[in-house]
Amino acid sequence: MLNDRNWLITETCFDLARQNHAETIFTIGNGYLGTRGAHEERYPGEERTTFIHGVFDDVPIVFTELVNAPDWLDLNLWLGGEPFRLTEGEILVYQRQLDLRTGRLSRRVEWRSPQGMLWQLAFERFASLANPHLLCQRVTIKALENTNLEARTTLSGETDNLNYKHWDWIGQGFGQNSAWLHLRTRSSGIELGAATRLVVSGGGNLQQSAWDTRNAPTLVVTTQLKSGEIVEIEKITAFYTSRETNDPQGTARRALETVPKRAWKGLWESHARAWQREWERCDVLIEGDDRAHLAVRFSLFQLLAAAPRQDERVSIGAKALSGYGYRGHVFWDTEIFMLPFFTYTRPEIARNLLSYRYHTLEGARKKARENGYKGAQYAWESAATGEEVTPTWVPHPSDRTQLIRIWTGDIQIHISADVCYAIWQYWQATGDDDFMIHRGAEIFLDVARFWASRAEWNAETGCYEFTDVIGPDEYHDHVDNNAYTNALARWQLKTALQVLAWLESHQPQKAAQLRDQLELDENELAHWQEVAEKIYWQEDAQTGLVEQFEGYFQRKQIDLQALEPRTQSIQSLLGIEGASEANILKQPDVVMLAYLLPELFDENKLRANYEYYNARTDHTFGSSLGPAIHAIIACRVGKPEEAYEHFMRAALADLEDVRGNAHDGIHAASAGGIWQAIVFGFGGLKLGENDWNTQPCLPTHWKRLAFRLKYRGQTLEIDLFNSSGKAGEE
Amino acid sequence: MLNDRNWLITETCFDLARQNHAETIFTIGNGYLGTRGAHEERYPGEERTTFIHGVFDDVPIVFTELVNAPDWLDLNLWLGGEPFRLTEGEILVYQRQLDLRTGRLSRRVEWRSPQGMLWQLAFERFASLANPHLLCQRVTIKALENTNLEARTTLSGETDNLNYKHWDWIGQGFGQNSAWLHLRTRSSGIELGAATRLVVSGGGNLQQSAWDTRNAPTLVVTTQLKSGEIVEIEKITAFYTSRETNDPQGTARRALETVPKRAWKGLWESHARAWQREWERCDVLIEGDDRAHLAVRFSLFQLLAAAPRQDERVSIGAKALSGYGYRGHVFWDTEIFMLPFFTYTRPEIARNLLSYRYHTLEGARKKARENGYKGAQYAWESAATGEEVTPTWVPHPSDRTQLIRIWTGDIQIHISADVCYAIWQYWQATGDDDFMIHRGAEIFLDVARFWASRAEWNAETGCYEFTDVIGPDEYHDHVDNNAYTNALARWQLKTALQVLAWLESHQPQKAAQLRDQLELDENELAHWQEVAEKIYWQEDAQTGLVEQFEGYFQRKQIDLQALEPRTQSIQSLLGIEGASEANILKQPDVVMLAYLLPELFDENKLRANYEYYNARTDHTFGSSLGPAIHAIIACRVGKPEEAYEHFMRAALADLEDVRGNAHDGIHAASAGGIWQAIVFGFGGLKLGENDWNTQPCLPTHWKRLAFRLKYRGQTLEIDLFNSSGKAGEE
Repeated sequence: MLNDRNWLITETCFDLARQNHAETIFTIGNGYLGTRGAHEERYPGEERTTFIHGVFDDVPIVFTELVNAPDWLDLNLWLGGEPFRLTEGEILVYQRQLDLRTGRLSRRVEWRSPQGMLWQLAFERFASLANPHLLCQRVTIKALENTNLEARTTLSGETDNLNYKHWDWIGQGFGQNSAWLHLRTRSSGIELGAATRLVVSGGGNLQQSAWDTRNAPTLVVTTQLKSGEIVEIEKITAFYTSRETNDPQGTARRALETVPKRAWKGLWESHARAWQREWERCDVLIEGDDRAHLAVRFSLFQLLAAAPRQDERVSIGAKALSGYGYRGHVFWDTEIFMLPFFTYTRPEIARNLLSYRYHTLEGARKKARENGYKGAQYAWESAATGEEVTPTWVPHPSDRTQLIRIWTGDIQIHISADVCYAIWQYWQATGDDDFMIHRGAEIFLDVARFWASRAEWNAETGCYEFTDVIGPDEYHDHVDNNAYTNALARWQLKTALQVLAWLESHQPQKAAQLRDQLELDENELAHWQEVAEKIYWQEDAQTGLVEQFEGYFQRKQIDLQALEPRTQSIQSLLGIEGASEANILKQPDVVMLAYLLPELFDENKLRANYEYYNARTDHTFGSSLGPAIHAIIACRVGKPEEAYEHFMRAALADLEDVRGNAHDGIHAASAGGIWQAIVFGFGGLKLGENDWNTQPCLPTHWKRLAFRLKYRGQTLEIDLFNSSGKAGEE
Repeated sequence: MLNDRNWLITETCFDLARQNHAETIFTIGNGYLGTRGAHEERYPGEERTTFIHGVFDDVPIVFTELVNAPDWLDLNLWLGGEPFRLTEGEILVYQRQLDLRTGRLSRRVEWRSPQGMLWQLAFERFASLANPHLLCQRVTIKALENTNLEARTTLSGETDNLNYKHWDWIGQGFGQNSAWLHLRTRSSGIELGAATRLVVSGGGNLQQSAWDTRNAPTLVVTTQLKSGEIVEIEKITAFYTSRETNDPQGTARRALETVPKRAWKGLWESHARAWQREWERCDVLIEGDDRAHLAVRFSLFQLLAAAPRQDERVSIGAKALSGYGYRGHVFWDTEIFMLPFFTYTRPEIARNLLSYRYHTLEGARKKARENGYKGAQYAWESAATGEEVTPTWVPHPSDRTQLIRIWTGDIQIHISADVCYAIWQYWQATGDDDFMIHRGAEIFLDVARFWASRAEWNAETGCYEFTDVIGPDEYHDHVDNNAYTNALARWQLKTALQVLAWLESHQPQKAAQLRDQLELDENELAHWQEVAEKIYWQEDAQTGLVEQFEGYFQRKQIDLQALEPRTQSIQSLLGIEGASEANILKQPDVVMLAYLLPELFDENKLRANYEYYNARTDHTFGSSLGPAIHAIIACRVGKPEEAYEHFMRAALADLEDVRGNAHDGIHAASAGGIWQAIVFGFGGLKLGENDWNTQPCLPTHWKRLAFRLKYRGQTLEIDLFNSSGKAGEE
């Protein structure tokens, strides 16, 4: 299915004003770490950042964050005695390309130095997907006259996270052409061992030295070049942390020692093969729309680049490993938006991501306990331990005496159901009974217990209610009986009982052990059943409209059209209070529910709710999570062009920075939503217990849409053609 | 008067567990910068810090802070190939001494290396008081066998403030034996130029190299030593910032170039002379109590080390330049506690400190305006601009969802009167009419305008009131009619009218210009008079007791004795709310007033209020500002031994860390209070318009107390002897 088009993200202008956006776009990664696309040489205002999964450390206000690792890209050149910097001299050729097929970032430059010397340079880098501890760089340099060059690389422990430092120095040293550094995070005590090696080929009179500057060991090589001669510098870096080994420093040094001196070719080939295998499992083909096709592949690339393959104690944060936004914290974004891509194409990775929720159950139990509930209440923002790390207060942008209270960590409770939803979906898709028996069931039971203890009995209405919550639509907080939350809670309670029944019939011993461990008795199970049956639910029998929360229909009516064109969100325009009083949504809420639990919405009801809420949603500057979901439902109600508009809003969030915030990192949930829009929206895939079918709904200008996925041991190859304006199944 | 005893602070144990306390104690400075007493070589947990006056930069939560400059102390030795570190090998001799007479810190070490080689080392450092841009270090090294040594020094721009980085790199380079570095603060844009030079004498086969590591230029020298030979390494560093010159980098490099190659002797002699001149003006002699004597000198040393001599746009923060506590912010501590020492011994420095308040008038006007008042309201915490920088919210120590609101920046309003009180005191002591005409008067008038606009008319009581304030006693916030605040406001308004009258008779043009500039009309002046006459004031006619604020007498009675012995403050024991509801004081409030405005308290009233409030004050763990003031009033009511107890509580706050927080920096207000306790407490000095006298009250074991000060152009030499238990005047 792989074709040769639409794999390359290209930049032809060196523009410092948009360098932080470009750093996000040119992020590379291998599921162990992600590295933003800073240049080898340094520029003011850059955000040179490498995040290693799971390496969190304490920080004020946001509690914990992924730590910026030592910069493995650092490579500074002095060409004929002049420092190579694109801000000086003249740029004759500049081309930077990220090859999505292999995760290789390359840069070709022809540069005239301030003193007039001409140079041709080609830089390449990749983070090995075959051995994720190895990071590879190469630069080839050609001068057009006899001259010399010096290359310096520093392994520095002085990196910071937006000014905040996390590393303490432990030690450093040098080997043959190599340097190593040993660090420890200041609060969490995670150790990092880094080792780097520089090998130069070509040139003459090669001289090497090592600068043992504290916390910044530096390798320096100088060489003579003849006119037209090509010198090649190969730099390999190894990272290990104490999360993988008791001796990260020794392990990193040994890892480097096992790499042959001219390592590039071998490392490259195994890396490229690994990426090829990835794409064979998940590539998507769109014919007739190169822009959309490239954007889809970019989204999948970023998800694959951040996906933990060797580690089941980490998950993917809202910005993957590509920027400081949300500091690496994990939200429902992972389970509801990103996970289906992995569940259906890379179930091993999905299992790792879901196992993270199993390993952080203690954090969720602690949160429930501290809030006065039973069971497990997952953190709205989760990091190393699963404890709640949502910032509670953030500085007011203009008034120094004010702070803004962030309530999501307190009352956006639907995430505990979302986690279970993803487990269920994974189980249905993979049939991985082992996961359900040993991990999933315990989560299901402890989350059900949370819901039952959180539900409030209202004798007047005869209902169990969930008051004072935030649903997916975060413009409205402290609401009662959010439809999404209530429906997911009901689904979770019922499904938990199903899971327990299944476990009791398939693994009675495990079932007994869990009931014992959790002290689950029949009264409690009966209570779950009762709560599930009596959860508050309201819909208009005539219109089919589901009210997003109690009183939503009475919120102030705002004419969204009258506010266009906008460059900021409705919340920014109206203020937090103003947006809360209005009926505008940040993102789909009832529509989100209709996507996740389609059985609750027949065709008319789906259409009615979509039309109603779609017209009242801040699509452009509300949540980036929304557009892909709207695209799917638009397809389901037969509106492919409207779906396409939503879809492209999601697809261009990063590449074209349509929200103006891509410098903070990619929109990983949107990236996952894009895959779902392809498969379950335009592709119209329906998966049944024993069968599947597609009800495609392609935009008219798409000639072909093809994708593949795994379902219950089968590989489904779906290839849809749009002939005479109508899509058909091959 | 200078004698040879009690000048040396000595440490004979190398103890990493108390290294941060020792860093505070061994802080040296020259009024341009202060440097904590970290060792030349590095140890885990150290806080290597140099603060340069006025170099502030933005930071979360506390808004702005003094920036940790590059570390000029860095000097690492490899002795016979082994790194010199006291945590390895064996320490045979260790002695560190701060000579208060010259501000020289020295360290003598005999060390057996892990491989068994014996070394004798002597380190010295001083920050030149003669040329405050020059920082001097020397180490002499002797080996007892033929061997070699290597010395490295790095000028690093990677310093941080408790993990937070403030510097951006601009450039670096090398000269003859020297390195330079050019930095800029990230938010405030202050540039720093630093240059350092290493000169080695003795040894053989000297080799020098330079490591051009980015942001960490490093000088390396190696040399051979014969058995018994002494090698001397001299390191001179120069700092300039863009606050002093447009070209800090060039200026620092040139400053270093003008220093001769063997610079130590000349630099040392001019430096020591400068310190001698300082001590000649202000030394205090105590015979019969070496511990107290040394503590007094230590206090004066720290004040002198932080006193800006060349800069009238900075002031001394609550921890001087010796630690991160309060981040360099300036409080009333300066005017009320530290300033009298300078006013009476170094009026030129007092003028600089008061000029800082003149240059920050715009910040004070802004604060008044933003709070809805007229005139100038000084910031409770002030930094570069005079705008309010008190943190408004700080994290709760145990509950992540809670923050603690700091109210002092909003309602601790007495500081505006305190600033004027210090100006008035300075004017009375020095007769510096020029200052009053060109700076003081404007401050007085604009502050009076603030008080008049802040006063609230209460028709029921027929009084002007100040409700919702915090007085000096910060255990009680949001109180009405704090006695201290009301009395100081009344004093300020009346004195402002006096100042204006004086100005009109002595400098009618300036008076007219000010009235014009401030748009002061007769109605407003009449209003000031009326407010001053009708400010709320309550005292018990029978007992003479002044109620600290309305309702204080009804606060819950706490038996302080019953809570002894304590290791924490009453506020820590009872909680913020609990302490607020109780009648325990953090520090003197009515007693503070009795000290500043003694004319309001006759002898009986003074005694009654002292006895009453003294018994209700948290002397040990409340504010460190209190003990010195209690000592003074105890003397005035004839209780020298009780005074001594209070006094020593202040005197040992730093040296013996009696409050357990000296690692954050010295207690600069306490240091200033100690001088006042010597002069106005034990010495009993009374200054009249045309005369002065002493009513000494020496502790029985003091044999002699002597000090000198300047008053209205005279030098007063006061030498008090305690013969037969009674002090007399010479």
